[in-house]
Amino acid sequence: MRENLKIGILGGGQLGSMLLRHAIDFGLSVSVMDKDANAPCARYTSSFTNGDQKSFDDVIAFGKDKDVITIEMEAVNIDALRELEKQGKKVFPTPDTIQVIQDKYTQKQFLQSHHIPVVPGVPVAGKKELHEVADKLPGCLKKRRDGYDGYGVMVLKTSADIEKAFDQPCVLEELVDIKHEIAVIVGRNEYGDVQCYDPVMMVFSEEKFILESQVAPAQLDAGLAEEAIALAEKVADALQLVGILAVEMFVTKDNKILVNEMAPRPHNSGHHTIEASTTSQYEQLIRAILGLPLGDTKLHQPSLMLNILENEGLRADREEKFSSLLAIPGAHLHWYGKIGSRLGRKVGHVTVTGSTMEDILAKAETIRKILN
Amino acid sequence: MRENLKIGILGGGQLGSMLLRHAIDFGLSVSVMDKDANAPCARYTSSFTNGDQKSFDDVIAFGKDKDVITIEMEAVNIDALRELEKQGKKVFPTPDTIQVIQDKYTQKQFLQSHHIPVVPGVPVAGKKELHEVADKLPGCLKKRRDGYDGYGVMVLKTSADIEKAFDQPCVLEELVDIKHEIAVIVGRNEYGDVQCYDPVMMVFSEEKFILESQVAPAQLDAGLAEEAIALAEKVADALQLVGILAVEMFVTKDNKILVNEMAPRPHNSGHHTIEASTTSQYEQLIRAILGLPLGDTKLHQPSLMLNILENEGLRADREEKFSSLLAIPGAHLHWYGKIGSRLGRKVGHVTVTGSTMEDILAKAETIRKILN
Repeated sequence: MRENLKIGILGGGQLGSMLLRHAIDFGLSVSVMDKDANAPCARYTSSFTNGDQKSFDDVIAFGKDKDVITIEMEAVNIDALRELEKQGKKVFPTPDTIQVIQDKYTQKQFLQSHHIPVVPGVPVAGKKELHEVADKLPGCLKKRRDGYDGYGVMVLKTSADIEKAFDQPCVLEELVDIKHEIAVIVGRNEYGDVQCYDPVMMVFSEEKFILESQVAPAQLDAGLAEEAIALAEKVADALQLVGILAVEMFVTKDNKILVNEMAPRPHNSGHHTIEASTTSQYEQLIRAILGLPLGDTKLHQPSLMLNILENEGLRADREEKFSSLLAIPGAHLHWYGKIGSRLGRKVGHVTVTGSTMEDILAKAETIRKILN
Repeated sequence: MRENLKIGILGGGQLGSMLLRHAIDFGLSVSVMDKDANAPCARYTSSFTNGDQKSFDDVIAFGKDKDVITIEMEAVNIDALRELEKQGKKVFPTPDTIQVIQDKYTQKQFLQSHHIPVVPGVPVAGKKELHEVADKLPGCLKKRRDGYDGYGVMVLKTSADIEKAFDQPCVLEELVDIKHEIAVIVGRNEYGDVQCYDPVMMVFSEEKFILESQVAPAQLDAGLAEEAIALAEKVADALQLVGILAVEMFVTKDNKILVNEMAPRPHNSGHHTIEASTTSQYEQLIRAILGLPLGDTKLHQPSLMLNILENEGLRADREEKFSSLLAIPGAHLHWYGKIGSRLGRKVGHVTVTGSTMEDILAKAETIRKILN
């Protein structure tokens, strides 16, 4: 590793913290910018900047002395990243990739133009236009930009629901008959080398569209895992990706795979790679953006990941709950250290590893009881 | 985890960096002090102090606003730690434990007083006194304090070698007929809970007494692993340890186990626990000093750890060597990012994991060729 190489991350949340965790392995110097001065990353680098990732000036000021710039969230200023690229900085994923993905409709158009099956959807500018496509209901309404963790997603059953809909640019998607939700994380470097992790199974909370748990490996019918991996590789090549990309997919009840959404950065669906895979998604991102060989993605033990959402019980009795949790062999706590989190916010996760899936499921049940 | 808990580490080298890596998992706020302003840790915390760990005033100034203080090296100011303890800070390992261990002769006396078998040795004040015990040669001469990585150790074959001996307080040890060198890392918390990792096999370079490689699990004759673990537990209880302790032992040719040396902190012989064990030694230290349940120490895959010493070949061609190394599946690089390291200095390590020891040994051979 070059001792004087300067790496910058836009975004300082838990994904950035976990990226720093793995940057330590390569002795790298990493700077982070986030608009929240108390972002989790602020504690784990000597070079934290309090600035807005969406501000042209802030991104330029942050990037001007860096060699390589990456992201841990896609809501960043693309114009500034393009300017930094012109100045000779390496920006990975590229501004083109981020721009395509940061809008859920252009993302869909891009995939369709590359003949990748997606969930059908139409763009709508606001509530008024929703009435014009009311015949397409029921459907899933998603804000085109800046949605995360279930914020910016709602189901509209009938036209009566339009009243409470988002009044801003959205995409209205067909409700698909879903058997499973899965995700594949794919890494790709400048030389076009591609490596996929095995598909994982995701379980979302029905009300809030927030990931409740994730299981690796996904138990899928024969051929589906290979198909999902091939799709993820195709997307990575189409994007000329440099970095990592989470591809969330639906498996329909008739065993078709449709791409749901993508994220060009470390992702919730790959948290388990820290404990369960030979190379973590965070190390894979570092390898990809530094032009290093991609790491082995083998899953060396099965795992189950549970998100921890801030709740009253946890607030009242966190110390004792964590002690109970940490007494369970193979329960790996990741607490994000977010200060003053609102109820329902993702504040940590637990990855459970073990030798058999049966053992892991039993432990996960105990952990659910402890945390809720 | 308490959001406002302030943890301080004395020492900012690679062991401190790896400790920070795992402090991220619990969202902890960690400050570090080191006398080298460019110590590896300086990059990975927003709270780095450039101060001397051996200075009373520096340690007091660093510790005064901390809740829990720990170490990543034993050469620290004990009087300051006792004073901080009086002020109500938690200091783990305790000043008593550190004091016993930071002197290689008092360490030996302590073990003997607890009927733990050690390598026989006598204290010598300097060269002059060495002549008085010349009848004990050949022997191994060790500085009583501040030796590390082979510095402060030499073999004296005959009295003619005394000329070049250290002229300071040392311990002269018998040369033992060694079959294996092994180590056990033991963790213990305030409640007296104890957990040991399985013994690992260590291979030292003959000339320099520096660890060349380490293999986990150690292949030992029946009963010896249990005996080594029982000894480590006995030592931890005798010390009333709170924290982790590496116990280095000799297995003699007649299958006796003798304790060689101890270190009350994360240790080279436990690097593999990051990738190969359910709980890393770094997380175990955090759990122990925070009064959390100790983690499962199970080895979930075999591993081999190779130290990387700065050398001319590496200086000339580091980028390419690292690329070759990282292309090997299961080769986990830890590069310490030490700036301007002298030749021979420990600048990183590689942990190789795989499904069989045969596979790992073959990969390690390739890595040795790449790195030298």
